Amino acid sequence: MRTRRPDEIRPLSFRRKYTKQAPGSVLVSMGRTTVLCTCCVDEKVPDFLVGTGKGWLSAEYDMLPGSTHSRKPRDRAGKVDGRCVEIQRLIGRSLRAAVHLDKLGERTLWLDCDVLEADGGTRTASINGAFVALVDALHSVKSLGPLSDIVKDSVAAVSVGLLGDEELLDLDYAEDKDAEVDLNLVMTGAGQFVEVQGTGEEATFSRAQLDRLLKLGKIGIDAVTAKQKRALGSQWPFLG
Amino acid sequence: MRTRRPDEIRPLSFRRKYTKQAPGSVLVSMGRTTVLCTCCVDEKVPDFLVGTGKGWLSAEYDMLPGSTHSRKPRDRAGKVDGRCVEIQRLIGRSLRAAVHLDKLGERTLWLDCDVLEADGGTRTASINGAFVALVDALHSVKSLGPLSDIVKDSVAAVSVGLLGDEELLDLDYAEDKDAEVDLNLVMTGAGQFVEVQGTGEEATFSRAQLDRLLKLGKIGIDAVTAKQKRALGSQWPFLG
Amino acid sequence: MRTRRPDEIRPLSFRRKYTKQAPGSVLVSMGRTTVLCTCCVDEKVPDFLVGTGKGWLSAEYDMLPGSTHSRKPRDRAGKVDGRCVEIQRLIGRSLRAAVHLDKLGERTLWLDCDVLEADGGTRTASINGAFVALVDALHSVKSLGPLSDIVKDSVAAVSVGLLGDEELLDLDYAEDKDAEVDLNLVMTGAGQFVEVQGTGEEATFSRAQLDRLLKLGKIGIDAVTAKQKRALGSQWPFLG
Amino acid sequence: MRTRRPDEIRPLSFRRKYTKQAPGSVLVSMGRTTVLCTCCVDEKVPDFLVGTGKGWLSAEYDMLPGSTHSRKPRDRAGKVDGRCVEIQRLIGRSLRAAVHLDKLGERTLWLDCDVLEADGGTRTASINGAFVALVDALHSVKSLGPLSDIVKDSVAAVSVGLLGDEELLDLDYAEDKDAEVDLNLVMTGAGQFVEVQGTGEEATFSRAQLDRLLKLGKIGIDAVTAKQKRALGSQWPFLG
Amino acid sequence: MRTRRPDEIRPLSFRRKYTKQAPGSVLVSMGRTTVLCTCCVDEKVPDFLVGTGKGWLSAEYDMLPGSTHSRKPRDRAGKVDGRCVEIQRLIGRSLRAAVHLDKLGERTLWLDCDVLEADGGTRTASINGAFVALVDALHSVKSLGPLSDIVKDSVAAVSVGLLGDEELLDLDYAEDKDAEVDLNLVMTGAGQFVEVQGTGEEATFSRAQLDRLLKLGKIGIDAVTAKQKRALGSQWPFLG
Amino acid sequence: MRTRRPDEIRPLSFRRKYTKQAPGSVLVSMGRTTVLCTCCVDEKVPDFLVGTGKGWLSAEYDMLPGSTHSRKPRDRAGKVDGRCVEIQRLIGRSLRAAVHLDKLGERTLWLDCDVLEADGGTRTASINGAFVALVDALHSVKSLGPLSDIVKDSVAAVSVGLLGDEELLDLDYAEDKDAEVDLNLVMTGAGQFVEVQGTGEEATFSRAQLDRLLKLGKIGIDAVTAKQKRALGSQWPFLG
Repeated sequence: MRTRRPDEIRPLSFRRKYTKQAPGSVLVSMGRTTVLCTCCVDEKVPDFLVGTGKGWLSAEYDMLPGSTHSRKPRDRAGKVDGRCVEIQRLIGRSLRAAVHLDKLGERTLWLDCDVLEADGGTRTASINGAFVALVDALHSVKSLGPLSDIVKDSVAAVSVGLLGDEELLDLDYAEDKDAEVDLNLVMTGAGQFVEVQGTGEEATFSRAQLDRLLKLGKIGIDAVTAKQKRALGSQWPFLG
Repeated sequence: MRTRRPDEIRPLSFRRKYTKQAPGSVLVSMGRTTVLCTCCVDEKVPDFLVGTGKGWLSAEYDMLPGSTHSRKPRDRAGKVDGRCVEIQRLIGRSLRAAVHLDKLGERTLWLDCDVLEADGGTRTASINGAFVALVDALHSVKSLGPLSDIVKDSVAAVSVGLLGDEELLDLDYAEDKDAEVDLNLVMTGAGQFVEVQGTGEEATFSRAQLDRLLKLGKIGIDAVTAKQKRALGSQWPFLG
Repeated sequence: MRTRRPDEIRPLSFRRKYTKQAPGSVLVSMGRTTVLCTCCVDEKVPDFLVGTGKGWLSAEYDMLPGSTHSRKPRDRAGKVDGRCVEIQRLIGRSLRAAVHLDKLGERTLWLDCDVLEADGGTRTASINGAFVALVDALHSVKSLGPLSDIVKDSVAAVSVGLLGDEELLDLDYAEDKDAEVDLNLVMTGAGQFVEVQGTGEEATFSRAQLDRLLKLGKIGIDAVTAKQKRALGSQWPFLG
Repeated sequence: MRTRRPDEIRPLSFRRKYTKQAPGSVLVSMGRTTVLCTCCVDEKVPDFLVGTGKGWLSAEYDMLPGSTHSRKPRDRAGKVDGRCVEIQRLIGRSLRAAVHLDKLGERTLWLDCDVLEADGGTRTASINGAFVALVDALHSVKSLGPLSDIVKDSVAAVSVGLLGDEELLDLDYAEDKDAEVDLNLVMTGAGQFVEVQGTGEEATFSRAQLDRLLKLGKIGIDAVTAKQKRALGSQWPFLG
Repeated sequence: MRTRRPDEIRPLSFRRKYTKQAPGSVLVSMGRTTVLCTCCVDEKVPDFLVGTGKGWLSAEYDMLPGSTHSRKPRDRAGKVDGRCVEIQRLIGRSLRAAVHLDKLGERTLWLDCDVLEADGGTRTASINGAFVALVDALHSVKSLGPLSDIVKDSVAAVSVGLLGDEELLDLDYAEDKDAEVDLNLVMTGAGQFVEVQGTGEEATFSRAQLDRLLKLGKIGIDAVTAKQKRALGSQWPFLG
Repeated sequence: MRTRRPDEIRPLSFRRKYTKQAPGSVLVSMGRTTVLCTCCVDEKVPDFLVGTGKGWLSAEYDMLPGSTHSRKPRDRAGKVDGRCVEIQRLIGRSLRAAVHLDKLGERTLWLDCDVLEADGGTRTASINGAFVALVDALHSVKSLGPLSDIVKDSVAAVSVGLLGDEELLDLDYAEDKDAEVDLNLVMTGAGQFVEVQGTGEEATFSRAQLDRLLKLGKIGIDAVTAKQKRALGSQWPFLG
């Protein structure tokens, strides 16, 4: 039922300032996948950084119970879902790569990515929205210098899948569950890699397939970066 | 900074089918307070109802970390915030009063109310949106008979506060934190009480004050009910 | 099987200094419902009050496993029973309304209400006993001034139920489970409301019914207050 | 301040049927130490016994927050206090030694020992009261045969301490915290050992000292057994 | 102070049947990193597989408190360390890729990887040892057919790091904490990819660098595979 | 199938410096029971000792999942197994009896005993290995004076069981599960008692039996002490 080209990402939109309490608040949609990404600034750092002058960035990811086809019970019994843990660690590492933490001052940026509707690609949508929320939140901190000194580069993410012989960009849920190989790619606007996570769930893949997946992923990253730049407009921290 | 009359509720809107996975999904806004209410249908009942032919309705309430002025940490350490527990029990009781559980069949209705933005009145907004989501979800269950047999009446909620000498309807956060007395009222469309919760946080109130709060509350309930009816349009399960 | 008038409370007794370790320790019985209420004084306050000179009051409520007809498992899995959370929040708010927290100094009053035997009305019995334990504990703190400056008023609680057409005061368990509407009332000795919680579990009630329940409740409150006054004797902090 | 002989136990009393909901309910006092011991009968067994025809006995022990000099926080964070775990395992093993579990049928006896006031010896008081509650609960199960077939023997417990050169029976808290060696002894009415737990907290003891402690303990066990027999009167399950 | 070539792995050894209770039990050492990998066979499957005839494989990873330079507290407060969750999910996916789960019958293979000593590369050592333990455990299940029908291929893992301009194979802790980019590679004996996880912690990397890391990783995988084959000897399930 | 005399312990060995990260690290084997005992030194004390100049010693015990015949699930749900709690408290008390805590300075010794393979007697093996690890760890703290001032005496443990009429030393799992009485004995090298724990699981024992068990236990203690002395060689802190 795919109605777009294999190298095309789903419709991607960013609604900035979606809520007003958090300094960064972005509702990101990739196709039907919808995530609310907020970025809060806490004027404290974890114990291991106190006194260093350095800042920190921490991410949390969760899915609302009604976001999936069968209701997903909340993690209230004190046991956080392993998949959520894995995803939020990926989001945290990816965004930390975008920021000069040592120029933040002793503050923590909290990125919360809560999935309102899940239709595949929630981790990549989260990273894409989180970057935009991060820029908005940093703009709100008056005492920081120009963002071009603090934000190293933009960060974008996309998934690529292998279905039979075909590589497809930005899989939705129906495509994803049939994919034999799933590559999640996080890259900067300048085309550097931040994270490469290729997984053959109960399958394997060759070097030639990996190369094709990486090539297709780069096309997606460029498309996401362009959308992020348009969404941020004059707030885009970089010249290019 | 209140710009509306003391007996006026804040702008109230319901966006039905806000997400597509859950059969009932309503984004309710009362002023800046925004709650996503989803209603899922589970074809099972808790142990104490198995074999009775009777259904159940369960509600959960939570706030997203970015919904409040200072980021609210998630309840992941296995300890659910006491205020959330109290509120979700109120939502559950209020909605159960709207439904003939014995005509549901052995299924559970799950109402999840997740606050995207909090500016006072999150529990009343949740109940108001949950009722609309409930009706949408019940319409999606084909095997049920006409909803007028299953839904007893509509349910609406509103808060009323006492600030100094003045009673005010539907307090926002700034008003609420100065209020000496806070009354949360849940009533049916026909004007019956479902819940009355009047609290003098570190203060007390007289019978005359209670009567004035109840009177003002009724005005708010009628306004909410009218909005619910308009939002549901032809799906409104009642004649009147 | 009710052997007393509809407007009569069950036999109510307070055994002060029931245990010796806690400065306030009251075994309260309302009919067969028996609760041990202790009040401890901690020379610390929660973080949000440090440095303010203001004190705090916190309540916890639980039921012993053998207190109910079927043994109630302990809350040891890290998940506190929702009903207990709701009740202990009610107890805390009710007692805080009785005390000038800003005259306490930076100390916390801990009220623990543990149900030894449950036969309906455990939350109202808890509040009634907790007030007596609170006064005893405050008398034990030598550095405080006269209690009449610190305790605003006495606090008493009673439940009223609607069974069919009849209003009944202070329901026991057998009556309570048949009641359609349940009103818990917390009031001061001077007749001011502290909390009004009226609930129609799977039912609703009219304004006229609410008025009759409130009227009957006031009779019960007066009876409880008189018993508290007698129990405290010369320790009663007020003139009247 | 010890006012009794070294070989004398503190005043020991059993108040049977202290509460009415549980079939066995005994308030036991040894000096100022007071424990409510209830015994409930559950018509189920743990998984490992289903289908064996054999019964089980399980004990839980806890202290109320107000039972100790400084308030003891509740074990609600999902982490049970290690000392409580150790004690409840001792109680369980001790009482299981008193009962022919294979003649109980597939039912579980739940013994709950909740300390209302702690002044040393809470574990021995718990075992002493639990035995009486157990007998009362077994009498309430109509389908069981004569208790003399089911209860093997009575079970009593006492502590003995070594303070300097002196052995003392049944230490209260002030004595216990100075004791170098602490022996907890659980024995049957016929003088057989059920548990011997001797501990030199940061100290050690010789074989000669152990022998003297065991001898003194036996005197205490006999005194406790006599009190249990008197308390149960005609319900005492044995001839002797 | 690296004393081996950049393309050399650390000394790698497998001690099979290290303990006797678990059917697969391998102590794997890569340099000073030591992990005990056990594989147990449970004759049950998770709920979602009951009745399908298909089996499952689940992995858990943890570090003993004394395995690291500063003692690592145990995960007993009910909150599992995020890094452990991420690693055990990687181990599980990697080993599932090695097995025809649909030919296992309805049984679960449990792979437990407990780090006795940590000096970098604990996740790759775990995967390497787990594969050997898995083969030993499968040999112990008599009712299975020939392992060549059940095990698809061998699975090996290695890390590669980028330190300044240099790529290094199989980093120890001292090297790893200075590495800017860390690639964990899981591959089959036949040279197919199972997982590629490249991470620039607070750094990024180019396509050319990724290619060099992948190339070096392949050398390490071949070395690990050869060692696994030698360790299993005649139990090696494959012809080649 | 016991192949050694009733008064003989199983082959006992200590492998010191088994891992390198922890200053004390001993792999102890008693027959097939194998425990890794590590001792870490933390330059902090618990709150109740801050400012006293006194040190502390804390022990934790756990079993690896693959250490038992049926895989033992990890204690990750936040609920620590009661048996583990009981055992680790015994280990802690036993080792504290060996050390002048007031001469340690404000530091905490952490003893972690993790069972790699369980075949009976894991608690006694843990104590035996922990003493050796403790000595090694204390030798590594340069600022301490001579160990003969800090370590009071060696500590050894052994179990003795009653099977029918026969007393047996150091039971393995097969023997232990048939034993009617189980005595765990912890003693110093000089022959003083540290802990005596005699338990008749669903059985009882006489004074004469206790005496015989104690006598046999002493023989085992002497054998263990001799092995500890040989293992420590010149590091043995005592003259004798």
